[in-house]
Amino acid sequence: MRPDLDPFHAIAISRLAYQLQAEGRSVIHMEFGQPSTGAPKAAIDRAHHVLDTDGLGYWESPALKARIAQRYDEKHGVKVDPEQIILTCGASPALVMALASAFEAGDRVALARPGYVAYRNTLKALNLIPVEIACGPEDRYQLTAAHLAALDPAPAGVIVASPANPTGTVIADDEMAAIADICRTRNIRIVSDEIYHGLSYVGPVRSMLEFEPSALVVNSFSKYFSMVGWRLGWLVSPLDHVHRARAYMGNLFLTAPSLSQHAGLIAMDCTDELDGHVEVYRRNRQLLLDALPSLGLARIAPPDGAFYIWADVGHLTDDSMAFCRQLLTETGVATAPGIDFDPVEGHRFMRFSFAVSTAEVEEALRRLVPWFAAKAAI
Amino acid sequence: MRPDLDPFHAIAISRLAYQLQAEGRSVIHMEFGQPSTGAPKAAIDRAHHVLDTDGLGYWESPALKARIAQRYDEKHGVKVDPEQIILTCGASPALVMALASAFEAGDRVALARPGYVAYRNTLKALNLIPVEIACGPEDRYQLTAAHLAALDPAPAGVIVASPANPTGTVIADDEMAAIADICRTRNIRIVSDEIYHGLSYVGPVRSMLEFEPSALVVNSFSKYFSMVGWRLGWLVSPLDHVHRARAYMGNLFLTAPSLSQHAGLIAMDCTDELDGHVEVYRRNRQLLLDALPSLGLARIAPPDGAFYIWADVGHLTDDSMAFCRQLLTETGVATAPGIDFDPVEGHRFMRFSFAVSTAEVEEALRRLVPWFAAKAAI
Repeated sequence: MRPDLDPFHAIAISRLAYQLQAEGRSVIHMEFGQPSTGAPKAAIDRAHHVLDTDGLGYWESPALKARIAQRYDEKHGVKVDPEQIILTCGASPALVMALASAFEAGDRVALARPGYVAYRNTLKALNLIPVEIACGPEDRYQLTAAHLAALDPAPAGVIVASPANPTGTVIADDEMAAIADICRTRNIRIVSDEIYHGLSYVGPVRSMLEFEPSALVVNSFSKYFSMVGWRLGWLVSPLDHVHRARAYMGNLFLTAPSLSQHAGLIAMDCTDELDGHVEVYRRNRQLLLDALPSLGLARIAPPDGAFYIWADVGHLTDDSMAFCRQLLTETGVATAPGIDFDPVEGHRFMRFSFAVSTAEVEEALRRLVPWFAAKAAI
Repeated sequence: MRPDLDPFHAIAISRLAYQLQAEGRSVIHMEFGQPSTGAPKAAIDRAHHVLDTDGLGYWESPALKARIAQRYDEKHGVKVDPEQIILTCGASPALVMALASAFEAGDRVALARPGYVAYRNTLKALNLIPVEIACGPEDRYQLTAAHLAALDPAPAGVIVASPANPTGTVIADDEMAAIADICRTRNIRIVSDEIYHGLSYVGPVRSMLEFEPSALVVNSFSKYFSMVGWRLGWLVSPLDHVHRARAYMGNLFLTAPSLSQHAGLIAMDCTDELDGHVEVYRRNRQLLLDALPSLGLARIAPPDGAFYIWADVGHLTDDSMAFCRQLLTETGVATAPGIDFDPVEGHRFMRFSFAVSTAEVEEALRRLVPWFAAKAAI
């Protein structure tokens, strides 16, 4: 059998959280990176209309591909041909297609540790070899060009994520350029996960396409566009590669959900409503940043974007799963244990998601402050 | 790079068909296995309600898993635990999970030729080795226990499909039992694609679970349930295996579309409406069977189920792609070339899908009869 994939431990936390809720407990869900806001109203209106007028067959929306291409021009000054875009059932299948179409079995692919658990697992599932690079606070938990220059031999590819999960850190513009440079020099194919684009608290975030047009770029409607369960994402491939990626789409997935494509097209112009969500996240983030010192959590990654805070709780535990479970059962605040994102150091980290309402963050802090104080006093 | 996957040639036919339509031509789409009927009305009503009342986050519907399990009891007298079921974004990802979780890189997996192109391609994408077994009219184009007994060494697995694509043939009950027996004896894991269940013209079709409880079973809402673009399917795994498959789901796909799960649950009880579609297919099939002799198409597979007719056109062409393209441009009838389903013999076969309206089948026949007569006269 292939090696077992690592489970998402946050799913076990979430199950326990829902069980506690079913028992009548008040639970605040900060364990997943899932906006609770739902799709923009105009997108839902469009879905109602389409439900009554369209048979919803296999379909890939030309208008949505064109609109996504236009977004790269508007946001990044990059010309993308709509034919470079493949619409997918979320970012996860887009990543599968990117990795399957760009690499061959046995290829080594570099990635930062900590990082999103599915990177490592999807690589393993495709018989690719993850080369995890330990990234600490000195690197803001991000891969650098220096890391990639030092790898011997050069890997076939690298997965870059900015803003990143679980840390929310953004790679600086000059570092993005340097990463692109070293990848050109060493012939390393870049896969850039840009799923948290649109969720930045430090100004615009650059697309890897601004630095390296041959990068494969993954994105989704699940985060900024707040359309989680609609399962809609996309892959941008260079034109000379897209037919290969498209063959994987046709065989492994067929098409993205048709109704979601109709609604997603409308969502792309619901900027006011969606930017309003970002303002909520910005407030939530500030509340947490202001409160973390009083929780004794001083060693955190700078949450430049996304909706996460990655906190070092090594002074309180060496078992982040047990720690998160205890936190949940004693306070009703569900969080994600660090071991989901870093198999080596994650036992002393945890991740808070602040993709909840501000009132929920406030209530969470009311519960967390005395709990952490009691923990530290033991 | 991994070997290029074979493209779906029917997609090129379909593109040409839509191009002709855009130019004002009348086109009948018999190239894909896609019901044109849309979701049941009650399922659409449910979707409207859910759109207005649910945030549509990441979700796996416990009620839908329970309802699917109940269906195995109702239709097949088989007890399935809802925990054995994983909801997926259509049958394609269910097949990916089945193959990835059950086999390891380099394993040999047997399958019938002709067969659905994605079987071969998904195996290749996962670094598994397809062992194609040539199946002709003497086997009704289906794998048999004798085929599996003769393979040396025994493969690690086999993909069984009944009713099959592209032929619509159903494996007889005693042959299903014999296949299950030889697989137990030779330790061959069965993956059973049951996506065309519910679409039978020869009486009930058995599930492989009736013969082998450890089989992995793939199914979908895209065919009988007429919910193509909703991208909803499922995988049944034995309990001692499902955690492995679920780990692949969480990493490669996350969850199935939430709205589709709500609607799919309702669709499962829309039997009258859905069985009405089957009656349409039954009429369409009979019209085609009655007319095929006048087209000079005598060598066809018995279309016991699904909505396909697999016809030998070797007396007219040795290039099924060119043949289907010419048929389309000259008559406006789009069909699928045999090379999509059989890389060896498919150049002399074509596939008609009769998942269209009866009026469309009648109009198609008005165009096909003189065209085939003229072809035969050359």
